Amino acid sequence: MSVRAGVVITGTEVLTGRVRDRNGPWLSDRLHELGVELAHITICGDRPEDMQAQLRFMADQGVDLIITSGGLGPTADDLTLEVVAGFAERPLLLDEALEQRIADILEPLMKRWPDLDFEAVRASNRKQAMVPEGAAVLEPAGTAPGMVVLPREGSGPTVVVLPGPPRELHELWRAAVATEAFREAVVDAGHYEQSMLRLFGIPESEIAETLRLAEAEIDGFGRLEITTCLRRGEVEVVVRHEREAAAARTALEALIGERHERTLFSDDGSTVDEQVAELLAGQTIATAESCTAGLMVARLAERPGSSAYLLGGAVTYVDRAKVDLLGVDPELIERHGAVSEEAAEAMAAGAIERFGATVSIAITGVAGPGGGSEEKPVGTVCWCVQRSGGTPMTRSVRLPGDRAEVRDRSTTIGMHMLRRLLRGEELPV
Amino acid sequence: MSVRAGVVITGTEVLTGRVRDRNGPWLSDRLHELGVELAHITICGDRPEDMQAQLRFMADQGVDLIITSGGLGPTADDLTLEVVAGFAERPLLLDEALEQRIADILEPLMKRWPDLDFEAVRASNRKQAMVPEGAAVLEPAGTAPGMVVLPREGSGPTVVVLPGPPRELHELWRAAVATEAFREAVVDAGHYEQSMLRLFGIPESEIAETLRLAEAEIDGFGRLEITTCLRRGEVEVVVRHEREAAAARTALEALIGERHERTLFSDDGSTVDEQVAELLAGQTIATAESCTAGLMVARLAERPGSSAYLLGGAVTYVDRAKVDLLGVDPELIERHGAVSEEAAEAMAAGAIERFGATVSIAITGVAGPGGGSEEKPVGTVCWCVQRSGGTPMTRSVRLPGDRAEVRDRSTTIGMHMLRRLLRGEELPV
Repeated sequence: MSVRAGVVITGTEVLTGRVRDRNGPWLSDRLHELGVELAHITICGDRPEDMQAQLRFMADQGVDLIITSGGLGPTADDLTLEVVAGFAERPLLLDEALEQRIADILEPLMKRWPDLDFEAVRASNRKQAMVPEGAAVLEPAGTAPGMVVLPREGSGPTVVVLPGPPRELHELWRAAVATEAFREAVVDAGHYEQSMLRLFGIPESEIAETLRLAEAEIDGFGRLEITTCLRRGEVEVVVRHEREAAAARTALEALIGERHERTLFSDDGSTVDEQVAELLAGQTIATAESCTAGLMVARLAERPGSSAYLLGGAVTYVDRAKVDLLGVDPELIERHGAVSEEAAEAMAAGAIERFGATVSIAITGVAGPGGGSEEKPVGTVCWCVQRSGGTPMTRSVRLPGDRAEVRDRSTTIGMHMLRRLLRGEELPV
Repeated sequence: MSVRAGVVITGTEVLTGRVRDRNGPWLSDRLHELGVELAHITICGDRPEDMQAQLRFMADQGVDLIITSGGLGPTADDLTLEVVAGFAERPLLLDEALEQRIADILEPLMKRWPDLDFEAVRASNRKQAMVPEGAAVLEPAGTAPGMVVLPREGSGPTVVVLPGPPRELHELWRAAVATEAFREAVVDAGHYEQSMLRLFGIPESEIAETLRLAEAEIDGFGRLEITTCLRRGEVEVVVRHEREAAAARTALEALIGERHERTLFSDDGSTVDEQVAELLAGQTIATAESCTAGLMVARLAERPGSSAYLLGGAVTYVDRAKVDLLGVDPELIERHGAVSEEAAEAMAAGAIERFGATVSIAITGVAGPGGGSEEKPVGTVCWCVQRSGGTPMTRSVRLPGDRAEVRDRSTTIGMHMLRRLLRGEELPV
């Protein structure tokens, strides 16, 4: 009875990795909310035969719904509607009213580029007004309309055709879901529940061991669909099941909570970023960064409303800036080096003082590829988190990975240290 | 004669978007370097039937090579080798020497988590030593080995099985390419050339118009494979062709250069980040940021060796920090607001002074979703780039998009303003 879907991402720029696809993951979440199971995501370039093959693959796999992203632009390599119309055996017809609506959208936009020939632009957008016979039109959020295309004679999947730019895709998705054609395609969708546990500071293999134990101990374990994965240094355990298997899920969560008490930090789907944001209510925070060079403060600023507690940060990439902006004693740097727990502590104290913050975090390290030494190899990072007037909490670790990974992972460890500090907990040994 | 490949990315965490796939794009580049054409990327969850279907799809499409990523871990949802062995009709055999080598790798790693039961971990990793008959083993870079699996009786594609963690995948890929099985699979690979043009400050539809003109004017235009895409506010035009069509490529590049002189900033594949890094030789730079909150300085620090010119940055998220850290006159903020060209100018001057830099960039704006006003709606951003002692170059723009897009796009515009300043050019009108 379950409804399965496939997502087809088009675009040579995505296939070749020049542009990162953000639509597949987003659509996956939306489908999941509707109780529709996403079975396959496929990515093809701008060759019609390849896209056609992927649509046919989805149909062969028996999906009820295909969602395509991209290929609706004005350039000649944008071929999605032609291919989908062929797949659904529906001729493409010019919708003149739609063409006019697109022209109305384009006119004011063209004012930003006054040199453009309006008629030429309009002609290049005319193909965006070609509609497969019988399809529901989704009004453009940019200049490209989307479509919900029904298969000929009710056989085969319904195809939702969406534009590639994420903001446009999001808006047109909402319109697509409201169409009768869409609702009919997903009428048999089941009801799944999903929960997520997050752990930090534990190898994935230890979770594997716990799951093996759970399999032996927990009734109905087989009805749980469990995925574990390592992500930015955290282990995520996702459990998905039909409503009736909720008891097994609860038992599994209890077992993990018991065996991994010290490392389990989230059982309600919350991220460490969200937890830290909540813990910062009533506090003010400033950062002092060297190797992360702004990634920590930028991460704290990702959340809307972060201005309630985030004062700012000093990115002191060179030693002199550590001295001038944060008041770090140059002799301390001389004695211990800029990558040291001592320097991290002095930077954290400087951030509290200079910004007048109640909480601070400092990060200094060797991100690589150069700059390492025998004593402090590439990947060595030191953190200090501190409350105004409190005892600093410091740590140093040698991280694996390349420059980007070391910098990114450093912010994750920073977040977890902030969480511990703000909860009044000690660091684990 | 051309060799085509498919990439199969496995993992429910990737399919559901909790983890972003970085391996597809990376493999795409590597294949391209070898003259192998990537036709399809597919993503499936941890269900064996779905992965099997994708392997069969690739084979049906006549690819010569399949590369899989992920599903080689110790947990029960890691099923890639089993599925690939079935697909290639090769039984899985325990390789005891490999098992011992994996155990040797695990032992020191376990010291980080002294509580673990070593034997239990080793058992959970035993399945990683199961090898499809006749496959070439790629030694682990983490704990999981990769494989190059030959099809039964030489029919069907060769399958390269690689682990999911990018660093491990990269290392094992190098080993895979060196195997005889791999070399045989790609022996017929053709020789393609590729070039890329980048433009900034132009709508994609204007490029479409130029391409239509080129189609009419340029001999051999049809032999060029052209992709255009909008990415982080820039338009990228990629041209791919066999060696013999180089003249058409050159003619196209000349036409674009002529029609889009003011907006074409790269014809050698270089990014604006690379150009700015080069232009900063002999200079020192500091940033002053509000809405981007560290993204600009972090972007400048992305490049290894950036410490040669990057001094640091002041992230002054609240007004008081603008005053205290950058010496911005509080009256100026009072009069013009913190989001104003005047404030940006004062921040840029403050960064030069406080860091002793020769160049600075300041960004202040309303990233949203809150904080907008009628006069300065969400998306309003002001930049100032300046040389020590020089005339400040300021600009303000209202950017579309959500909070993350506004912040990211702000750094791209910042990079382009820096490029103009460092090249001694004016801003375009």
